[in-house]
Amino acid sequence: MKIGILGTGIVGQTIGSKLIHLGNEVMLGARTDNNEKAIEWTKQNGAKASHGTFAQSAAFGNILFNCTSGTASLAALNLAGKENLNGKILIDVANPLDFSKGMPPTLSICNTDSLGEQIQKLFTELKVVKALNTMNCKLMVEPSLLKSDHDVFMCGNNEDAKSEVALMLKEWFGWKTVIDLGDITAARGMEMILPLWLRLMGTLKTPTFNFKIVR
Amino acid sequence: MKIGILGTGIVGQTIGSKLIHLGNEVMLGARTDNNEKAIEWTKQNGAKASHGTFAQSAAFGNILFNCTSGTASLAALNLAGKENLNGKILIDVANPLDFSKGMPPTLSICNTDSLGEQIQKLFTELKVVKALNTMNCKLMVEPSLLKSDHDVFMCGNNEDAKSEVALMLKEWFGWKTVIDLGDITAARGMEMILPLWLRLMGTLKTPTFNFKIVR
Repeated sequence: MKIGILGTGIVGQTIGSKLIHLGNEVMLGARTDNNEKAIEWTKQNGAKASHGTFAQSAAFGNILFNCTSGTASLAALNLAGKENLNGKILIDVANPLDFSKGMPPTLSICNTDSLGEQIQKLFTELKVVKALNTMNCKLMVEPSLLKSDHDVFMCGNNEDAKSEVALMLKEWFGWKTVIDLGDITAARGMEMILPLWLRLMGTLKTPTFNFKIVR
Repeated sequence: MKIGILGTGIVGQTIGSKLIHLGNEVMLGARTDNNEKAIEWTKQNGAKASHGTFAQSAAFGNILFNCTSGTASLAALNLAGKENLNGKILIDVANPLDFSKGMPPTLSICNTDSLGEQIQKLFTELKVVKALNTMNCKLMVEPSLLKSDHDVFMCGNNEDAKSEVALMLKEWFGWKTVIDLGDITAARGMEMILPLWLRLMGTLKTPTFNFKIVR
């Protein structure tokens, strides 16, 4: 499959490398087509790896991942362009973390709105599925790194898109359960878990942990 | 032990009944001393149960629980009075859920502040320990209702108070692990998990679930 990943940070790189390892073609997208991190990643990931602008990456992918910083996501998607986004599934992994006021970061959007909703509102023809934003990127693509089961949440307005994403999360990454929280407004809760996640990382002194819903 | 519980709703009643069952004396506190729910609860819980005003309940307890609605907590504590609160441990179970704008509720405080912090700031001589606010009240006092282990979080500025609360959570209610998230600012993360919790309750069609941190 051809996959476009918006964002060249550790999250985009980790997801991209895993997808290439699974046999997919991946193009990382950045603001410019000479992004150093993207060039280096492309070198290291063989013939199926490429990089380009946000627009090129969005045009390339049949499925898209938003791995940009949450506070830069809308600008990145605007650069990607509606013509390259419309009709596609965007797996929104981003969190609206605002580091501008010091540590710990606060959320730039929350409570009555969310980044997932803002993206969906701005790009009505894009099938936004919020997922994977509640854990470290190594666990996103390799949940078996933890010995016992844990959960990934998902939400979005398009039922078919969610079914497809749930299947990909299981087949690509090995997730056993994907909890569908309903429409895209559930992105509020998924993003608002970040302050607890950050605090837990400090307490446990590792990013390698995740939430499990025990019933 | 003598315990004062501020609030006469299902949370306060459930915690109160459990504590009486364990041999403690409990006084439920309300705005007035003729609160119908408190009168009924006292009748049903025998000789060790009593009720009164917030001030009477706070004066009665060696340990206090804040089980009022989050949006009414500061007013309730003001009625309880510094003279009855100072030097005591307050286990803050409340969540600042604002139902005034319809369902689902939003948080009246979040992101850069929390109810736990506001209480601690207003009552500097009170030892506020935020705990138990991230699950249904039946699970608060009976975690073994779920077959496999799950977690309770705790935070606060006073280390001795937290040690005492952790011990009580284990001995009274049977919690196996209490995750200490640090100072009272961690109440932000603990309270901001509520939108996800509410969504999960809708998805799972039960309030009987909880978070486990898998490492």
